[in-house]
Amino acid sequence: MTVLIQPVILCGGAGTRLWPESRGNRAKQFLPLHSSHSLFQQTVRRTPAGAGFGPPVVVCGDGHVASVREQMEDREASLLVEPMPRNTAAAIALAVARSDADTLLLVMPSDHVIADVSAFHAAIAVGAKLAQQDWLVTFGITPDRPDTGFGYIASGDALDGGGFVVDRFIEKPPLDEAETMLAAGGYSWNAGIFLFRAGRMRDAMLEHCRPIFEAADRAVAAGMFDGDAFYADAPAFERAPSDSIDYAVMEKDDRVAVVPVAMGWSDLGSWHAVHTLAEDKDSAGNALTGDVFVHDSKGNLIRAGGKRVSIIGMEDVAVIVDGDDILVMPLSRCQDVRAAAKARK
Amino acid sequence: MTVLIQPVILCGGAGTRLWPESRGNRAKQFLPLHSSHSLFQQTVRRTPAGAGFGPPVVVCGDGHVASVREQMEDREASLLVEPMPRNTAAAIALAVARSDADTLLLVMPSDHVIADVSAFHAAIAVGAKLAQQDWLVTFGITPDRPDTGFGYIASGDALDGGGFVVDRFIEKPPLDEAETMLAAGGYSWNAGIFLFRAGRMRDAMLEHCRPIFEAADRAVAAGMFDGDAFYADAPAFERAPSDSIDYAVMEKDDRVAVVPVAMGWSDLGSWHAVHTLAEDKDSAGNALTGDVFVHDSKGNLIRAGGKRVSIIGMEDVAVIVDGDDILVMPLSRCQDVRAAAKARK
Repeated sequence: MTVLIQPVILCGGAGTRLWPESRGNRAKQFLPLHSSHSLFQQTVRRTPAGAGFGPPVVVCGDGHVASVREQMEDREASLLVEPMPRNTAAAIALAVARSDADTLLLVMPSDHVIADVSAFHAAIAVGAKLAQQDWLVTFGITPDRPDTGFGYIASGDALDGGGFVVDRFIEKPPLDEAETMLAAGGYSWNAGIFLFRAGRMRDAMLEHCRPIFEAADRAVAAGMFDGDAFYADAPAFERAPSDSIDYAVMEKDDRVAVVPVAMGWSDLGSWHAVHTLAEDKDSAGNALTGDVFVHDSKGNLIRAGGKRVSIIGMEDVAVIVDGDDILVMPLSRCQDVRAAAKARK
Repeated sequence: MTVLIQPVILCGGAGTRLWPESRGNRAKQFLPLHSSHSLFQQTVRRTPAGAGFGPPVVVCGDGHVASVREQMEDREASLLVEPMPRNTAAAIALAVARSDADTLLLVMPSDHVIADVSAFHAAIAVGAKLAQQDWLVTFGITPDRPDTGFGYIASGDALDGGGFVVDRFIEKPPLDEAETMLAAGGYSWNAGIFLFRAGRMRDAMLEHCRPIFEAADRAVAAGMFDGDAFYADAPAFERAPSDSIDYAVMEKDDRVAVVPVAMGWSDLGSWHAVHTLAEDKDSAGNALTGDVFVHDSKGNLIRAGGKRVSIIGMEDVAVIVDGDDILVMPLSRCQDVRAAAKARK
C-alpha cells in the first residue's frame, strides 16, 4: 500500500446483546470473547504499521479510556474522547475535523471479527483508489445466509479497478426479501466499515448534515489534551444531533461506492455467534471458558466467569456467569437476552 | 395414643444426590428444600409431645451437632453422637443400648417428606400394638408408580388389628418386576421407618448381628456427655461392622410385620423430586428460590443461592447455585448429579 491510511476505530456503545459480560464500561469490544484477544485488540492488530497504516485514532467515551490504554499494547495511537454518545455520524465528524483534508480515513467498529485479514487488506487497496477519486467507500460483506439482522447494500455499475457504485441501501429486510437478495446476488451486508478522504467527508457532511459537523468541529476547536487523550468540548459536542453515518451521509450522497468482500466477517452480535466462532471447542462442540465440568453435553457455550459451572445432559445452551449474574438460555434464544439485561439493570 | 413412643431420628449421611446444596456437614436434611422448614425440622414436628411422643433421640455425627441444635427449636431432645458413620444398624443399636427394654422406639430417617401426618400417626398406632406383641414393625409405603429406586416388601398373612407378616424383602427391582408388583398389590416400598420394643430389638441384634450390638453397647457404656449431647466412645464404636438394619436384622428375623400406609411419602431423593414437591410454584410450574428472573420458561427448578439467575426460554431444567458452584441439567437427568458432585469434591 503506497498511500498512508489512517484507521479510525469507533469504540462507542456498550451493547446489551452480550449481557451479562458486556455492560456499562465493560463493553463487548474489550472482552476476550472468542479468542484470548479482545475484539478491540484484534481490530487494532488488523491495521498494523507494517502494512502501511498510520497510528489509529480511537474514538471512545471517557468511561472506556482506561480499557483502551490497557489494551493498546505497544501500538502508538491517538485517543479521541467523546463527551457523550452522539451516534456514528458525530463520532466520525470528530475524527474528520481533526484530520488533514487529504488523509484517507478507514473507519471501523471496534467489535467485529474478521477472520481473513488478507482479503480485508486487498479490499482496502481497492477502496483506497476509489477514495482518492473522492468516492465515499463502504465495504460490503458478501452474504452467506439470508440474515435479517443486517442492512443490505445493492451494487450498481462496476467501477474501474474494482468496486461498484452503490445503487441503494436497504433496511434490515424480512426473511423472504433477504432470501431473494441472497439468491439474486449483487447485494452485500452493510458492516459499517468506511474509507474516504477526510476533506471529501467534511464536504459531504456540510452538505448533508451540517449541524452534526459544525458541532463536532467546534468541539474539536474547544477541546483539550489530557495526557495522550484529546477530549472534545462537551457543551459544543452536546449540540450535535444523534444520527448514524448511514442515515446522515451515505444514503444521501450520490458518489458512494461499495467494495464487496468475503473475509470471514462477524459482528459477534450474540452469544450464539460467540459460540459459532469460538476457537477452542471440545470434540462435542462445547466452547468452555473457565472452570467447567461437562458430563454428556454438547454444543454448549459455557463461560464460568470465575465460578465453577457443572453441566449434565445439556445441549445447545449458553451459561454465562459474570459476577453475581448467571444467565441460562438456549443458544437459539440469544436475541432475547435484552429482556434479562433490562430487568437486571 | 396411650403408650409413650420414643422417636429416634437418624441424622447420618450427607448424600450427594442434592449436590451442590447438600455436601459435607451441610446435609440434605438441614436444608429448606421444598418448603421453608428443613426436612429435619419437619421430621421433629411430625412426632410432637402433644400426640404422645417422648422427646426425640437424634443420632448424628459430630459435624451435624450444631445444625441439630440450631434446628431443634424449643423441642426437648437427646443428642446421641456417633463417633464415625457405621450405617443404620449400629446407629439404631446405640439408641437401643441407651433405652429401657420396654420403651417403644420409632426409628425415622431425618430426610423424608410425609405429607399426610394423620395417616402416619394412624399407622403408628397400629404398629405400636404389634410392637408390644414383640413384632419388629416396618412401615411400608403404598406404591403409586413402579419405582425402581426403592426396595420392596411383600406382605404375607394379615395380623389382627392391622398390619401383615412380612413375607420377604425385595431388593431394588428391574422395571418389569416393579410393574408386576404394582399391578399385583400386596407390595410396599421399604422406607426405613421402624417401630419396636427396645428389648426386642436388643435380643434380635444379639441373635443376628451380635458384633454390631456389642460394639454399640460398649460405646454407650464408655460414652460421655458434652452438654446435652451424649458422645458414644469412638474406639469401641469403631469396631462395629457397618451394615444396614435391613440386612443385619429385619431380613433375618422371623417375627417382622409391615404396616402399609399411604401418607404422601417421598425421600426427596433428587432435584426432580424437590421440583415436584415444591410448595410455591409459579403459574408456569417454575419453582424459584432467591433472586431469579424468568422469561418465557416453564417447569424449571431454579435455586439462586444468593446470586442472580436469569433464565430465558428454558424448560424442565434445574439450575442450582451454591457458593461458587453452579449446576445446570435437565430435571430428567437428576440421577447423574453424582458425576458432578464427585468431580467437584
